[in-house]
Amino acid sequence: MKDVEQAQGILIVGEEACAELVGRKEAFEAVEAVFGAMASGEARNFPVVREAIGHADALYGFKSGFDKAGMVLGVKAGGYWPGNADKGLTNHQSTVCLFDPDTGRLSALVGGNYLTAVRTAASSAVSIAHLARKDAKVLGMIGAGHQSTFQLRAAVEQRTFEKVVAWNPHPDMLPRLGAVAEELGLPFEAVSAEEVCAQADAIITITSAFEPLLLKDWVRPGTHIACMGTDTKGKMEVDPALVAAATVFTDEVAQSISLGEAQHAVASGALSPDAITPIGAVINGAHPGRTSETEITLFDGTGVGLQDLAVASVAARLAEEGGRATRVAL
Amino acid sequence: MKDVEQAQGILIVGEEACAELVGRKEAFEAVEAVFGAMASGEARNFPVVREAIGHADALYGFKSGFDKAGMVLGVKAGGYWPGNADKGLTNHQSTVCLFDPDTGRLSALVGGNYLTAVRTAASSAVSIAHLARKDAKVLGMIGAGHQSTFQLRAAVEQRTFEKVVAWNPHPDMLPRLGAVAEELGLPFEAVSAEEVCAQADAIITITSAFEPLLLKDWVRPGTHIACMGTDTKGKMEVDPALVAAATVFTDEVAQSISLGEAQHAVASGALSPDAITPIGAVINGAHPGRTSETEITLFDGTGVGLQDLAVASVAARLAEEGGRATRVAL
Repeated sequence: MKDVEQAQGILIVGEEACAELVGRKEAFEAVEAVFGAMASGEARNFPVVREAIGHADALYGFKSGFDKAGMVLGVKAGGYWPGNADKGLTNHQSTVCLFDPDTGRLSALVGGNYLTAVRTAASSAVSIAHLARKDAKVLGMIGAGHQSTFQLRAAVEQRTFEKVVAWNPHPDMLPRLGAVAEELGLPFEAVSAEEVCAQADAIITITSAFEPLLLKDWVRPGTHIACMGTDTKGKMEVDPALVAAATVFTDEVAQSISLGEAQHAVASGALSPDAITPIGAVINGAHPGRTSETEITLFDGTGVGLQDLAVASVAARLAEEGGRATRVAL
Repeated sequence: MKDVEQAQGILIVGEEACAELVGRKEAFEAVEAVFGAMASGEARNFPVVREAIGHADALYGFKSGFDKAGMVLGVKAGGYWPGNADKGLTNHQSTVCLFDPDTGRLSALVGGNYLTAVRTAASSAVSIAHLARKDAKVLGMIGAGHQSTFQLRAAVEQRTFEKVVAWNPHPDMLPRLGAVAEELGLPFEAVSAEEVCAQADAIITITSAFEPLLLKDWVRPGTHIACMGTDTKGKMEVDPALVAAATVFTDEVAQSISLGEAQHAVASGALSPDAITPIGAVINGAHPGRTSETEITLFDGTGVGLQDLAVASVAARLAEEGGRATRVAL
């Protein structure tokens, strides 16, 4: 069987096929499963390579790992090219290579741009599903860039939200997010960041900020916050005192304390790394997650390679089953 | 022009096309050029990822880098699967991804198995071309595995060798190497490792040894030795005292002192890292290379990602020019 597959060559799964085949449900299930596998030790991310290449102001690198439970091995390669938008291209460029864990042979090449957006949205959605109060009614959005619409669509499926409140550093970007809320049948209100906190039961932050946009005293008891924007040393979306006061969950503790939202609270000693729980432990039932209606839960979504590989693996499988992949020999 | 290229999709260059298009001359020139660019600071290898995945005894990882002089950006992904031979597959599995340095978009997917062999052989050949005595007549080979025939073919083109002497831990593997020497019109003699040293003017070591196969006192003044087998902490092909006594060159100093042949002499303090010269400096004319007929020169070939990217870039260009590549959209 495997030899036949090899003889058939490498699956090529393009951006269009990914967008058609991998919906929010598929991404949610794949990301939830791999977070669980990470927490149980069956899946492991390898060291991240991230380099300023010294040309075109580009940041380039690799996120890779192996999920033994799902038998998924691979790498997401690519990076950030700030001048792309002027050329009509996406600034973030990603490609996923999947390898056969039994032989090391390349098995699939999968476009990674759409998948990166959908897997990141799945990550905050998984956190809302497992950590937000069951009666959460108002969803708060901090950030209204490209990623925010993916985040919104995935989040509203996790609770019976009745309203969306949002703030963005550039208010002119909010109408696009509002249009998506409207499409989803939800009232949308553009408010201050403080008012987002005053109204929301669950908040997603998805910005590139380097200073706190949300202060500790603004956030109400019982709120769940998914911090999705901080993925680099120095970035910060919420008050470190808020992080220190919350019950903190993350995709990967090592990234959370070094380059995620928790980096500042950990660096100052206000939060112990031991107090940060991998969300996979909640998924696996090893940790209870939220334990009261007044607790503030905070998910530090740093983004790991295994998320990319998990959704790319789904894309490859569905593309193969549906005849939506090209095959090439190498 | 670039937009047209993008619209045409990604070049797929298979193993067969690589073997047909990238000969020893092309590999030599590409590797020599990128070694020069590394020494002048125009090209840089990024941190290497190398992981035991915990399945199939596989070692998996990535070598990547950017050559601004040649405008080559990419990664070689793959690794070592010891059980592959039993399945009729190569144990070493490699695939190269090249990216457009201006946009980050994947530009080519290139089979890396043949190229890895030819770029490694080009590396020792470059060292012989720049460091061996002009009157070198006898070539010594330590090692007779898969790589050794590539090494032999590339080496004999650098000097007017009149004879090949060889030793291998498993003598039964020597006839294959002997057959290649015969094909090249060169007398071949299977001898002891000590006798290789007694006769040879240039020696290539290409084994997976963890203890010295060549002792310092065996090697004659004026010999050039290319140590090509040591690419991991703990491996060793020659007496550290020989390394300390030789004038040492390498592809990349950082790898030479950490996982190359020089690791042991440096760790013991017998060799200063400052005494190791990037061979690119010789290629660029910044270092004289060999300065006497009696000096022992030693090239520590550790293998860097930029070598892989350099030859893959040649393969992609020639495949495109010759209509030997498939194109796919992603």
